[in-house]
Amino acid sequence: MDERVHDHADVLVDWSARIESGDDVVMSVSEGAHDLGVAVAEKLGERGANLVTTDGSAEVNRAYLQAHDGEFDDAAHELALFENADAVLALGGGRNTAAQADVPGEVRGAYSKAREDTREAYMDTDWVSTVHPTRSLAQQAGMSYEAYQEFVYDAVLRDWEGLAEEMSEMKAILDEGSEVCIRSEDTDLTLSIEGRTAVNSTASVADDSHNLPSGEVFTAPHATDGEVLFDVPMTLRGTRVEDVWLEFDDGEVVDYDAARNPDIVGELLDTDDGARRLGELGIGMNRGIDRPTDSILFDEKMAETVHLALGRAYDACLPDGEAGNDSAIHIDLITDVSSDSSLAVDGEIVQRDGVFRWEDGFAG
Amino acid sequence: MDERVHDHADVLVDWSARIESGDDVVMSVSEGAHDLGVAVAEKLGERGANLVTTDGSAEVNRAYLQAHDGEFDDAAHELALFENADAVLALGGGRNTAAQADVPGEVRGAYSKAREDTREAYMDTDWVSTVHPTRSLAQQAGMSYEAYQEFVYDAVLRDWEGLAEEMSEMKAILDEGSEVCIRSEDTDLTLSIEGRTAVNSTASVADDSHNLPSGEVFTAPHATDGEVLFDVPMTLRGTRVEDVWLEFDDGEVVDYDAARNPDIVGELLDTDDGARRLGELGIGMNRGIDRPTDSILFDEKMAETVHLALGRAYDACLPDGEAGNDSAIHIDLITDVSSDSSLAVDGEIVQRDGVFRWEDGFAG
Repeated sequence: MDERVHDHADVLVDWSARIESGDDVVMSVSEGAHDLGVAVAEKLGERGANLVTTDGSAEVNRAYLQAHDGEFDDAAHELALFENADAVLALGGGRNTAAQADVPGEVRGAYSKAREDTREAYMDTDWVSTVHPTRSLAQQAGMSYEAYQEFVYDAVLRDWEGLAEEMSEMKAILDEGSEVCIRSEDTDLTLSIEGRTAVNSTASVADDSHNLPSGEVFTAPHATDGEVLFDVPMTLRGTRVEDVWLEFDDGEVVDYDAARNPDIVGELLDTDDGARRLGELGIGMNRGIDRPTDSILFDEKMAETVHLALGRAYDACLPDGEAGNDSAIHIDLITDVSSDSSLAVDGEIVQRDGVFRWEDGFAG
Repeated sequence: MDERVHDHADVLVDWSARIESGDDVVMSVSEGAHDLGVAVAEKLGERGANLVTTDGSAEVNRAYLQAHDGEFDDAAHELALFENADAVLALGGGRNTAAQADVPGEVRGAYSKAREDTREAYMDTDWVSTVHPTRSLAQQAGMSYEAYQEFVYDAVLRDWEGLAEEMSEMKAILDEGSEVCIRSEDTDLTLSIEGRTAVNSTASVADDSHNLPSGEVFTAPHATDGEVLFDVPMTLRGTRVEDVWLEFDDGEVVDYDAARNPDIVGELLDTDDGARRLGELGIGMNRGIDRPTDSILFDEKMAETVHLALGRAYDACLPDGEAGNDSAIHIDLITDVSSDSSLAVDGEIVQRDGVFRWEDGFAG
């Protein structure tokens, strides 16, 4: 087996999930992630964890949902499994990203609704999601299999301790700051972050960060003003969009456009009131991720990008008891800040043309 | 997908496991059984059952066990899963029957011991084991993949209701009878079955029968006398044996031999006191199984064979409160009764040269 698969398993089990002897672990293995499953199982055996392996096959799930009448019960055994688990390791990486494309949306919705307690029990564990590089994901990224493997391992096999430290500087700046300005050729945006707390997303449950790879610092902005062009292409609800442009006034989107499929942007904005406001400002800091691959798990952590999410804010960013922006959606949009760009906090430049102050030593 | 895979799923879900709406089902899918997993998931969706799919990968299990120090804990989450399940469908069929060959026996033993409660909870469900035909199993059977698929589906896709009825005649004869005589060229054996109850193994949980395919009637003999030659080759503890011969006196093996690897037979007989006595007399009645394939799930149900098991007897065959033969082993050995053979109960011939009385109308 490729040595990098073992390294991936090491990072997942030790850095991300912090598995210890006696932990009750559920490992979910997607159809294409068998090799990573074997490597993680070995690591869990070494650590003396207790293992239940579930089958994350999208085709099995599709067949089940497709045949079901949509009136779902509680699944007491599934709930019991997660209620008694300490950690869940979800190994993504299928053989076809469209494997469940023909499951009716209302069946998915009903299934998801019936499993609310199970999902809550799942989220209460030290869960971590990661992906094994598969040909299907390489295809989605528009990359050869070999190049995609390089890409994934560059993103996953970081010096996480070093990156966590660097990101904590960014977090300190955002926590102390009250106003963020982002400027580049087609972007001039001001966001208030007064009273908000940034999250240092280190790919470790120790920092309440549940994705591997991670590598972003994010907070919950409010009172956004100005315009922003998201020049990193995205797939939103199965539809490709390019160059989404938004104009904000007092925190709310007042105008929008896109070079490709602007209608889908309009639909998203019309979801509910909260869909026109921002729930997240995130700063990508993972230098292993150097290009978009049409997977939000990677794209939003890309170095030299900033992302903003329309919709729901995360509680971790808000003062105790304060409700942030609420919405049924949380849609990340990404802008490239690698050239002719600046990101300033309270008037001091923190990042210029993709380079942070502490990397280059430039004066703020 | 091969239509027979769907037919297999139908038999498993409806005839064998009797799944109903709202049942909490665990489906375990081996590495090579994905197609059957998809077909069964579809059927479970149709029935409105609740599904948790576990990964039965032998390679994942091997990696875990191989790396573990052998001091296993209770796995509370695994126990909770099975305690809350109504049925477990185990879909065998891997990619390498030797996938776990290098896991030390003592680690396997310790793992198995630590999971006693889990196994008990599992056995308390309406569990059914079956196999999906894989190239690995075809190889073990010494057959081409296509021929092996034919073989498996012939064994599984029976008229189970008709076979169950035919087998119930056999059960009635054994229940009423007190002495069985088996005779063929090198076999002359008398077994007492006085007071014992036969089990009609119909491949349905409704008859407490948990393997698909099944198709045997078995009981627990005692006071066996005479000699028997098991001319169907077997693999015992990874070692091939041929023409095992046993001589019994008053229920106990007093002499043994084999044309190939007699030592392994000696080792088995020396396991404990019960290992020298019979725990089972079984009559194979599945005419879809017409040759041995080195898999006991199939071999012991083969039509025109009789099998005897050294070791542990099943409680279902014994009067309430009576303990049957006890042993750490239960090793089935099979003899061909297709020619120059007879099986008689209380002096009346029930089967002659592989043909039952009710098939041929011959006088007993």
